[in-house]
Amino acid sequence: MSMNYGPTRGMRDFYPDTYRKREHVFQAWRNAALLHGFEFVDAPIVESLELLERKAGEEISDQLYAFEDKKGRAISLRGEFTPSMARMILNRRELLSSVQKWTTIAQCFRYERMSRGRKREHYQWNLDIIGADSVVADFEVLSTAIDAMQSLGLGSENFVVKIGSRSLLNEFYTKLGLPPEEYREWCRILDRKGKVTTSDLERRFSELGLSESEVTTSVQVLEISTLTEAAEFAPPGSTAIADLEQLFQFGVNAGLDPFMEFSLSIVRGLDYYTGIVFEGFDRVGEMRSIFGGGRYDYLLRSLGGPDVPCVGLGMGDVVLGETLDELDRPQAKEQMTEVTVGYMTPEAEPMALNTARQLREKGYRTDLALKVEAPRAFFGRSSAMKAGMAVYVGQSEVETGSVFAKLLNTGELIALDSIEAKQ
Amino acid sequence: MSMNYGPTRGMRDFYPDTYRKREHVFQAWRNAALLHGFEFVDAPIVESLELLERKAGEEISDQLYAFEDKKGRAISLRGEFTPSMARMILNRRELLSSVQKWTTIAQCFRYERMSRGRKREHYQWNLDIIGADSVVADFEVLSTAIDAMQSLGLGSENFVVKIGSRSLLNEFYTKLGLPPEEYREWCRILDRKGKVTTSDLERRFSELGLSESEVTTSVQVLEISTLTEAAEFAPPGSTAIADLEQLFQFGVNAGLDPFMEFSLSIVRGLDYYTGIVFEGFDRVGEMRSIFGGGRYDYLLRSLGGPDVPCVGLGMGDVVLGETLDELDRPQAKEQMTEVTVGYMTPEAEPMALNTARQLREKGYRTDLALKVEAPRAFFGRSSAMKAGMAVYVGQSEVETGSVFAKLLNTGELIALDSIEAKQ
Repeated sequence: MSMNYGPTRGMRDFYPDTYRKREHVFQAWRNAALLHGFEFVDAPIVESLELLERKAGEEISDQLYAFEDKKGRAISLRGEFTPSMARMILNRRELLSSVQKWTTIAQCFRYERMSRGRKREHYQWNLDIIGADSVVADFEVLSTAIDAMQSLGLGSENFVVKIGSRSLLNEFYTKLGLPPEEYREWCRILDRKGKVTTSDLERRFSELGLSESEVTTSVQVLEISTLTEAAEFAPPGSTAIADLEQLFQFGVNAGLDPFMEFSLSIVRGLDYYTGIVFEGFDRVGEMRSIFGGGRYDYLLRSLGGPDVPCVGLGMGDVVLGETLDELDRPQAKEQMTEVTVGYMTPEAEPMALNTARQLREKGYRTDLALKVEAPRAFFGRSSAMKAGMAVYVGQSEVETGSVFAKLLNTGELIALDSIEAKQ
Repeated sequence: MSMNYGPTRGMRDFYPDTYRKREHVFQAWRNAALLHGFEFVDAPIVESLELLERKAGEEISDQLYAFEDKKGRAISLRGEFTPSMARMILNRRELLSSVQKWTTIAQCFRYERMSRGRKREHYQWNLDIIGADSVVADFEVLSTAIDAMQSLGLGSENFVVKIGSRSLLNEFYTKLGLPPEEYREWCRILDRKGKVTTSDLERRFSELGLSESEVTTSVQVLEISTLTEAAEFAPPGSTAIADLEQLFQFGVNAGLDPFMEFSLSIVRGLDYYTGIVFEGFDRVGEMRSIFGGGRYDYLLRSLGGPDVPCVGLGMGDVVLGETLDELDRPQAKEQMTEVTVGYMTPEAEPMALNTARQLREKGYRTDLALKVEAPRAFFGRSSAMKAGMAVYVGQSEVETGSVFAKLLNTGELIALDSIEAKQ
């Protein structure tokens, strides 16, 4: 009869302690999204394989948890939420007559080799603005994410958002006069910057078939590290530069500029993003990616719908949780049990139940003992639960009919009736 | 390129409007659970098929969304949360040294024919008390459920909890001296009461091989409709009767007796429940089952663990939602957008962003326009969103540098700086 009691490989159980940590993060996400006027949506965790494969890039597709239902339909656990979001919009196209600001906290599944920060499931917070092409929309998404991070106690000394632009890369590539068919590979090499040496980058550009001078210019592009330098290199009247300048100006106005850094080598999903792209990294040693997003204007078209300007972001709970762990940030503010109620004898039981009921009606999170307990055991357990108050119904309480709550930090006793309802 | 944009068959999309309805129910569940001292837990939505089949009765097993992962492991979407809960307890047996009060809102999947109130997924609220054998524990679970229903606006005129006892049925069966091997089938016939005619029940008892007098006594048992009658029929010193009497007395003390009704024909899962069992039904015409639960003391043993007394409950969101719909109960109290911010010209954009930022820092859920808008369009949209305040940044605001919020119900204007932070 022996069996394995662990969770499914690569997935997580959430016991009360880890659940509270998770909830602490979810609350920060929820609050930031709601403050910024996003509305929550959700979709089935199971989608048709066709939908997921149409959206996903090559790398994701073979990591899907795909299977067949009993009628032989090819379905899969979702690897991300975006395809579901696009499907929902296309199923109610009247929504496209106004801007939609959607958010979700979606569990997503990937069948991949496991390592630190990589599990087979994670919860991903998504923010998407559908139907707005202004940089204000890009900034709304970005600043909502930064606000959530800040409310978790993370400042600009803890993380940075690197911001690039796919349309700027397009402009540069066109200016360089390089062969269009090599554009994707050229971007892939850019994306390697900082991960390999400069001579390695040069070798890769050469292997792509670029001439010596083209290699030199490509490496020059890679050395651009400020928006001012990028503007000098960009063609006159560059809309990509204008958009980036506006975004950074919004950042300065809002006091968020310490979090924002221009970085040409932020490329992200090649088939997907079209404008400003960004990625949040922790500064804790390894510069892990905590969130990422940007403008994607052709998603709906790729699923048979119209062209609609969109901007969005995804942030997973696993890497973020590791960052919070390493920085030792408080992760579960929420106090669970506020009052404990115990009793000495079976005769005291009804009075204890009644006391618990009154406290709950007043809005206190109340733990009621489920059997008789000696005072010592009860108060010991109450302290261990970090309750603020404890009410013990003993013999004298039953005889007098009046009950007192003990404030556990001061020892002060207060009559039950004088405890006010929580607001 | 045509594709189906609907959700996976039998499953639900949640657009902002339906998400708010769902969240309204979840909030009622969460608040009731936390007030009663339950702690939230969660587990992977995918479990090993072996675990789910060990716990599930025969009927559930072939409704599982089972599949193989890429290594050929037999896994399945969970059909219920209980097996995961039991697994988690057995994986951390030190938890059994104290009482655990766990709650979860778990999406569960069943591959079944669809009808009203039956989908292929639903969210199930679970409450479980693990390690307590007192009737206080049964009452904690039951009263938490009733409190949640009440907070959703449902009173005793809307639903009733029918309460029976598996141990009482055992006592009766033993007293009747019927053949032990027919006990399960006998219970199944009891469960049909109210769904078929009395003569139909008699026929079924006969087919079971009972003598004429045994059929008569069995039908007599079925006609027992009050706890007093049951106590008369029960053997002397019946612990089942004592437990039921205590539960009903707790109900009277708490003022919950209008919700509680004794019913011997509440049987529930045959392999699972061992003591008091109950089921909540709506009174709206069809007496649909909204929730159910009871005492189950042998679950952990069936999974290779020790004997541990448990009591629990499950409540699904689909039937509950239909009941709320039919009774036209308010289902989305939560106001989404509290303030809207709009602007007339591109020059006003930075000031509008700054205004939105200030309002959000003060805790207001703020929708910021993502493009310039004429005043008429902006205020029309703000009214449609049912915002309480609207701030429009026009030419004069840019010139004077001061911004006013308009209270949309009175038309009153108040200076932005004088708006206080929300508590």
